[in-house]
Amino acid sequence: MEANVTELWRIVESLQAEFDSMETDMNVMWLMVGSILVVLMQAGFAMLEAGSVCETHVKSVLVKNLLDLAVAAVMWWSIGWGIAFGEETEHGEFNQFAGPVSFFLRGGGFIDESGNYGTTEGYTWALWLFQWSFSGAAVTIVSGAVGLRITMPAYIMTAQAIVGLIYPVVVRWGWNSHGWASAWSSTRDDLLFGCGVIDFAGSGVVHTTGGVASLVMMILIGPRLGRFSGGMSIQTTEESVIIQTLGAFLLWVGWYGFNGCSALYITGSSHVAAKAMVCTTICATSAGLGVTSASLVLFQHVEPQDVVNGILSGLVAISASCAVVEVEGAFFIGLVSAVIYLGCSRFMDIVRIDDMVDAAPVHLANGVWGVIAAGLFASQEGYSASYYADRSEQCCGWLYGCGTAQILANLSFVLSILCWVGLMTFMAGFSLKYVGLLRISEESERFGADAQHGYRRVELPDIVRKVLSQVE
Amino acid sequence: MEANVTELWRIVESLQAEFDSMETDMNVMWLMVGSILVVLMQAGFAMLEAGSVCETHVKSVLVKNLLDLAVAAVMWWSIGWGIAFGEETEHGEFNQFAGPVSFFLRGGGFIDESGNYGTTEGYTWALWLFQWSFSGAAVTIVSGAVGLRITMPAYIMTAQAIVGLIYPVVVRWGWNSHGWASAWSSTRDDLLFGCGVIDFAGSGVVHTTGGVASLVMMILIGPRLGRFSGGMSIQTTEESVIIQTLGAFLLWVGWYGFNGCSALYITGSSHVAAKAMVCTTICATSAGLGVTSASLVLFQHVEPQDVVNGILSGLVAISASCAVVEVEGAFFIGLVSAVIYLGCSRFMDIVRIDDMVDAAPVHLANGVWGVIAAGLFASQEGYSASYYADRSEQCCGWLYGCGTAQILANLSFVLSILCWVGLMTFMAGFSLKYVGLLRISEESERFGADAQHGYRRVELPDIVRKVLSQVE
Amino acid sequence: MEANVTELWRIVESLQAEFDSMETDMNVMWLMVGSILVVLMQAGFAMLEAGSVCETHVKSVLVKNLLDLAVAAVMWWSIGWGIAFGEETEHGEFNQFAGPVSFFLRGGGFIDESGNYGTTEGYTWALWLFQWSFSGAAVTIVSGAVGLRITMPAYIMTAQAIVGLIYPVVVRWGWNSHGWASAWSSTRDDLLFGCGVIDFAGSGVVHTTGGVASLVMMILIGPRLGRFSGGMSIQTTEESVIIQTLGAFLLWVGWYGFNGCSALYITGSSHVAAKAMVCTTICATSAGLGVTSASLVLFQHVEPQDVVNGILSGLVAISASCAVVEVEGAFFIGLVSAVIYLGCSRFMDIVRIDDMVDAAPVHLANGVWGVIAAGLFASQEGYSASYYADRSEQCCGWLYGCGTAQILANLSFVLSILCWVGLMTFMAGFSLKYVGLLRISEESERFGADAQHGYRRVELPDIVRKVLSQVE
Repeated sequence: MEANVTELWRIVESLQAEFDSMETDMNVMWLMVGSILVVLMQAGFAMLEAGSVCETHVKSVLVKNLLDLAVAAVMWWSIGWGIAFGEETEHGEFNQFAGPVSFFLRGGGFIDESGNYGTTEGYTWALWLFQWSFSGAAVTIVSGAVGLRITMPAYIMTAQAIVGLIYPVVVRWGWNSHGWASAWSSTRDDLLFGCGVIDFAGSGVVHTTGGVASLVMMILIGPRLGRFSGGMSIQTTEESVIIQTLGAFLLWVGWYGFNGCSALYITGSSHVAAKAMVCTTICATSAGLGVTSASLVLFQHVEPQDVVNGILSGLVAISASCAVVEVEGAFFIGLVSAVIYLGCSRFMDIVRIDDMVDAAPVHLANGVWGVIAAGLFASQEGYSASYYADRSEQCCGWLYGCGTAQILANLSFVLSILCWVGLMTFMAGFSLKYVGLLRISEESERFGADAQHGYRRVELPDIVRKVLSQVE
Repeated sequence: MEANVTELWRIVESLQAEFDSMETDMNVMWLMVGSILVVLMQAGFAMLEAGSVCETHVKSVLVKNLLDLAVAAVMWWSIGWGIAFGEETEHGEFNQFAGPVSFFLRGGGFIDESGNYGTTEGYTWALWLFQWSFSGAAVTIVSGAVGLRITMPAYIMTAQAIVGLIYPVVVRWGWNSHGWASAWSSTRDDLLFGCGVIDFAGSGVVHTTGGVASLVMMILIGPRLGRFSGGMSIQTTEESVIIQTLGAFLLWVGWYGFNGCSALYITGSSHVAAKAMVCTTICATSAGLGVTSASLVLFQHVEPQDVVNGILSGLVAISASCAVVEVEGAFFIGLVSAVIYLGCSRFMDIVRIDDMVDAAPVHLANGVWGVIAAGLFASQEGYSASYYADRSEQCCGWLYGCGTAQILANLSFVLSILCWVGLMTFMAGFSLKYVGLLRISEESERFGADAQHGYRRVELPDIVRKVLSQVE
Repeated sequence: MEANVTELWRIVESLQAEFDSMETDMNVMWLMVGSILVVLMQAGFAMLEAGSVCETHVKSVLVKNLLDLAVAAVMWWSIGWGIAFGEETEHGEFNQFAGPVSFFLRGGGFIDESGNYGTTEGYTWALWLFQWSFSGAAVTIVSGAVGLRITMPAYIMTAQAIVGLIYPVVVRWGWNSHGWASAWSSTRDDLLFGCGVIDFAGSGVVHTTGGVASLVMMILIGPRLGRFSGGMSIQTTEESVIIQTLGAFLLWVGWYGFNGCSALYITGSSHVAAKAMVCTTICATSAGLGVTSASLVLFQHVEPQDVVNGILSGLVAISASCAVVEVEGAFFIGLVSAVIYLGCSRFMDIVRIDDMVDAAPVHLANGVWGVIAAGLFASQEGYSASYYADRSEQCCGWLYGCGTAQILANLSFVLSILCWVGLMTFMAGFSLKYVGLLRISEESERFGADAQHGYRRVELPDIVRKVLSQVE
């Protein structure tokens, strides 16, 4: 009888160990699926952007889109991850603002107890992959916005600066459990406004970062030749509208990984992921329908790219709060994001900033709105499920009766992003401009950015050149 | 010793609870993956359809494809789900034909015991997502078929009617365990012909519904100008053939989610899902090869869109039975679906119905064939694994020796769909036609549906207009 | 008390059974996700290839791409799987070189104990699906390389020969635990050089096979008319560059399934899969950046298709070793693959082999390099995690101090593939050439391969034909 029970103990303990190991396997699988979906978003961005530019600049934009993920991978491997998620230093100190050195994946999670490298901890590897795919998204937003006026060296340096320094610092602030703005801790008593920021999938961390960097670069680099001096009409062909729409669908599909998998764990969090996906759906569609309705009422017609940008605006806006809002909240956030998109898009024309792919209205304006919306619409139930139940009465959204703590935390965070990213990007861009590396030559631009990179060296007859040069 | 056993009890019980929770997590993940794949199918439909129309109608078709999922989301959230899966009424009554009210996700599965909303039940949220993506597929079939002749208001009203009423009623009939035709119950003694319908992934529920609605709308709206009065030749460009093929591949990929994830559970059902995917593969390819062979024999050449439509026909036909047939059965079902496609496609030309994307031959004819095939080819082993073992000797297919119960149940179901959907769509379409809202103006159509929505307001010289108007 | 313990035993045993069943479910799900991703690669190949050919051959290439998966499915079902993975014969004999008969999925794994067919073993079904998708990749490489010069009957026969015989034999050699070169056994004492080959995801099995078959067919079929006799310039349009890039992104996304899911199990192997995906990422990007840097240095510009082919070269090269190398190794393998790609691509021009889609430099040269690299860069930790810990001191890579056993095993394997596949493809191709079936007629080619299949029967005016025929 006693032997019987001892044997049973042994079985139960081994079962428990196997169970724990399986739990890890599931979470690793979940992150891998999420990473693959976010990589698919790169295909979406590439198609969206290639479908938005004139023919002569297509190759230039595509090369930059292909390199985005590549530059991001090398920078995130060598430096970025270390800054964002590097382990504590020996003395137990932890810098809330920028990371200690833990570069080339030499940090804790990648080494097992016996000092071997990378053989036991699947979860850290999968998390690296997931976070890398996010860093790629941040870079792509910028390369899409200025891709056809920026020189190749300037592009590569900017991309390196973003993934190697600017973006990982923001990640550390918001998502590392030790970051000054992070909500991801149940034990710290120094949380921002007692709550920390709600930025579940990165309306702030990814989209506001990408959006404000885009805006600064667009202002520094200046509009396309002739964009605001009359005469220039952008003819979009049927093919390019198809390609744009394909891009939007691929982004939509990938966004389920972006938002849903940001729960980071599936075991014990599958309800969070599922609800996040439902809210993502409702917000994207209410934004799409919002833009469509407004267009039909105001102009009696609707362009595919308006619907596309409406849907994307909704997707950006819901990213911060997808796991903490109720469906009605998601619907309302989407409607507002449609209005914001339409207004900002018009505003960019008025202030004469040349934003070819609507990066600022979609990613910046709706990124900021998304972070604010999380402070307004987070429900107690949503907060409990996604963050910590014991803070839910204090840290839910203003509209759900929790006061202003959460909205203040979120505002502080998004303002810090605007300052940090804006300033750093300005310094990088201005230096490049100062040394004359930022923008391609006027001639290159006139005959297509592609020509600048040597694509199709167009040999125009002298007479044509002459005429063209007199247009302006 | 006793304490020892008590402690062991505690551990085992907590292990059991964790295990149950993990089982749910896996099933939720499975449904989420499935939903994402079915959303990817929308990209496939959009590309397939945009690649099938003349250049002047591309934007019109794309806008409608983008809005399909959006309209479906809002309608499925507000009304559709309630009709299809709404909970029993207070008095325990359950209507087998149309749902009780349980709108805006206020039904049982979305509220936990303490009355809180949506924080505990991941599975119901994931199921909503999965079912929404299916409803989007049903709408897309229709919008593809009539997308370039229908006005925007008529399109939106039709889409709303389909997702808000017509389609969810069919879902209730076939997939709600209480529906009059449903096989999804092990306890009910009032199953249709003692078996209920085998429509595993929706050859009937989704494709026959979408197909018959398309057919009715196509008849009501009439052919494109000049389609059958000579002179009109449709030039497909190389680009559009590439886009069509891309669409077909994306649909094929997404269909693994459509068919495989329709098991709804992965735990205990992974063998059902895997076999369903294998049968889906074999049926799609035998249909594709069937059309290819027939074309090579009859015409000595084969067009990509023939191969594409062959593959899609096979995918539609296997959806009802993918989990219950053997591989040989799937192969044969595919061959027949190739013949049906070729015959019906020719027939549509003869009766002068203008079916631009072959919606009727692919979705209607092969949808009906798929439901019938399930009644013929379901094996006992397949039925046991996917439905209920104790009914397998009575409810397998006619060709596997189970008599006519299953084929009669399937025939009744598909006939009911034809009547209900046909009638309702006719009423909706006829009303729109009566008030003159259904079809875009002749002038709009002549200069492209895109012009009707204000895309590219083509200002043709008077002389050109004059010539054009004399062509007919 | 005793009853108590008995009851506990019962619960624990049932828990254990449920746990085992769930483990299977997870592994089946993992393989299904992998299969879907590899099927998505077919969309990527189709886009890459359709974007690389002149307009007049697009339809021809697309039809062949659509049929690749179809022919592969029928052949892999009827014969291929039986050869590659068929069970032992009755007498317990096992042929290490070619399989016993176990065709049409009538083998062991598909039949349960009571003789029923296909109802219990999900894993075997999922493995069939996964292996089928790989066989499709091998065929697609060939059809892309010669797709626009080969006749339809010759294409179908070649595809059948590859999936029905040539490829499954290679699979048996390398991946069947009984194969002469396989490392997948912990008990056999007759492993090749005591180790067996490291070809985790198939740089050798899939890419070298597809690449050498392509090369042989390209040589037999000869270059396109005018390709090397001056005058012929290939104009790639903007649309086709977009389509190519889309193809590359889809391939990249799908490759995570190709490499990551090749662990075949997720339970207990999730860390292997995650690290494989990270190494895949780093190698693809270092290769892409390598080609970009070289182009910028050498030619001051970079074409999108160079970046694309660089990334694909990295993906091919890392397939063999993704799970066993360290990240630094992956980075270096990628750099070398960039050099190999650039060199071989130039070499093909010099020896005047017309390789339209760079199949030989990407798949053959980097496939061989990938297998060799695995013998150089496999670390002990990586080998322990992915293969067997007790062989890790003997079978790791030459650069990690394990001597030459592994590199010799890998060299033997890749040389055997070159001989077997090269010889068999030569026999098949030469026979077809001998009977005059291999290549389309000169006239067909001049007016587009599409014309040969009857696409767009171009009726050129006599005068145009005359001029064209005098060009050469």
